[in-house]
Amino acid sequence: MGIAALTAAARAGDRRAVARLLTAVENHTEDAPAIAAAVAGGDAIVVGVTGSPGVGKSTLVSSLIGAWRKAGLRVAVLAIDPSSPFSGGAILGDRVRMADHALDDGVYIRSVATRGHLGGLTATTGGAVRLLEGLGFDAVIVETVGVGQAEVEIAGLADTTLLLLAPGMGDAIQAVKAGVVEIADVYVVNKADRPGADATVRDLRAMMSLVKREPGEWRQPICKTVAQDGEGIDELVDAIAGHRDWLSGADHLAAKRRDRAAAEIRALVDAELRRRYAVTEALAADVAEGRTDVAAAARRVLDDTPETASTPSRRPTYT
Amino acid sequence: MGIAALTAAARAGDRRAVARLLTAVENHTEDAPAIAAAVAGGDAIVVGVTGSPGVGKSTLVSSLIGAWRKAGLRVAVLAIDPSSPFSGGAILGDRVRMADHALDDGVYIRSVATRGHLGGLTATTGGAVRLLEGLGFDAVIVETVGVGQAEVEIAGLADTTLLLLAPGMGDAIQAVKAGVVEIADVYVVNKADRPGADATVRDLRAMMSLVKREPGEWRQPICKTVAQDGEGIDELVDAIAGHRDWLSGADHLAAKRRDRAAAEIRALVDAELRRRYAVTEALAADVAEGRTDVAAAARRVLDDTPETASTPSRRPTYT
Repeated sequence: MGIAALTAAARAGDRRAVARLLTAVENHTEDAPAIAAAVAGGDAIVVGVTGSPGVGKSTLVSSLIGAWRKAGLRVAVLAIDPSSPFSGGAILGDRVRMADHALDDGVYIRSVATRGHLGGLTATTGGAVRLLEGLGFDAVIVETVGVGQAEVEIAGLADTTLLLLAPGMGDAIQAVKAGVVEIADVYVVNKADRPGADATVRDLRAMMSLVKREPGEWRQPICKTVAQDGEGIDELVDAIAGHRDWLSGADHLAAKRRDRAAAEIRALVDAELRRRYAVTEALAADVAEGRTDVAAAARRVLDDTPETASTPSRRPTYT
Repeated sequence: MGIAALTAAARAGDRRAVARLLTAVENHTEDAPAIAAAVAGGDAIVVGVTGSPGVGKSTLVSSLIGAWRKAGLRVAVLAIDPSSPFSGGAILGDRVRMADHALDDGVYIRSVATRGHLGGLTATTGGAVRLLEGLGFDAVIVETVGVGQAEVEIAGLADTTLLLLAPGMGDAIQAVKAGVVEIADVYVVNKADRPGADATVRDLRAMMSLVKREPGEWRQPICKTVAQDGEGIDELVDAIAGHRDWLSGADHLAAKRRDRAAAEIRALVDAELRRRYAVTEALAADVAEGRTDVAAAARRVLDDTPETASTPSRRPTYT
């Protein structure tokens, strides 16, 4: 099937066509530029969902899907699994709640592997998001099952990033201090029926009151949800829409999407530069054992003269 | 004061001399290579402490300091704050427990800023760790007050990485699934007097039983602690020593330190390459709006011909 036929089938709801296009885009195949051009110009709400394990991300995503489906939107979910090398349409074992939507033709859920993919999460997922919106999905949710770096990268891929917290999961202020205040657009205190929910909200408010903002800058709303019962989801949907309006109003959206594309290009460029400017084991040993310092070693790599006294003719390299 | 005098003063316990040397190393000043050479050859236990906010990292670090001090070791702590641009000897406000050790001459605690530093956390902190061990500290603890990427990087800087979990902080299996199983050398279930501690330990054990290991490979021990009361800390100290013995025994330690130095060199090299191979805003817009795909854009940057139809003569760039 050619690209035009594939994209037509995908737009008509053919999951296998969607999957084939996604695989081509994720792997940067030679068809990828033509596919990107064929689906250019989508206009989806792209929502990133981050938060520590156990705060209820999958349940919340399932509730969001439900709310958007009721409003007639087509919804796609990219569930990022940084520990897996296998992408696919399969719903992950632990996403029981999402399975409620598995038979709904207006919902497409895909697990996305990023391990071993050139350019990592950013370069793998950015094109996938653009493809899905180009295929007519009205909302694309990017969620990670991982922790760490993936959470930061996901914020870069989304228009609106939700940071989920749960009461009793530790000090909200610590999470906020750690720079997450800058990547989250909407705070969600999930499991809000548990003791400590109001304290978590209060901590967040106190923290936010300390951040200086320019006039017109976005002020993160705090939503309280009990995702399992659907409580607070309508308000969350409104908050997401509010952020989207703010983004569109002041040309922030176009800027955000350019930034996202720049990060993707960068990820691929970096992957190639790592191959070209390799750090040798001998040079690493020189630094580890104090024969030189890291800045001098870096200059050597850049001058492409990584020969050292202890360098054998064929040496292993780090990339 | 010259480098020889500074290092002599630092070895004798002069905190200000330690601070001045650390600042020089963190900023990659022209003295840095000479300082690195002057202190080469230390032999400290380097322990990374990671875990979600609220699991009790600072309290555990304080207990570890106490235990090592009792054994007569000199201990340094680098508290990494990815959200701050200011390094210094000041003890962070929320490290109340660590303040117990503030007047002890055998303990040196420094907050380390990484924001805006060339090469980020890795390039900033690696040299600091080597400096501290070269100055005669027997144990160096690297702890992050941040979440996200910092946690992954810290594991690369340490010989032995502790992953702290707490009961009721969500599914341990999710944390393990996310690839953290590969960066942790010792699991610590802290706040083990709380309900659910045994379930957390059981989940970890079940997860670990699924991981295939070669003969002689390290098998992560699981320690239960109540850091606030010092419970389980002796066992944790033993577990750290056990990992250290394993590392030393099979030449893993030298390899790990070479890997660490390689990562530091890489971080500085990458920073410079990002300057040289800039991604232009026009190119990012081309990808964002579907005029080309990310791989084609990356090739353009690498070919150093990022001119596009929509490129103005002077254009902003991303680094």
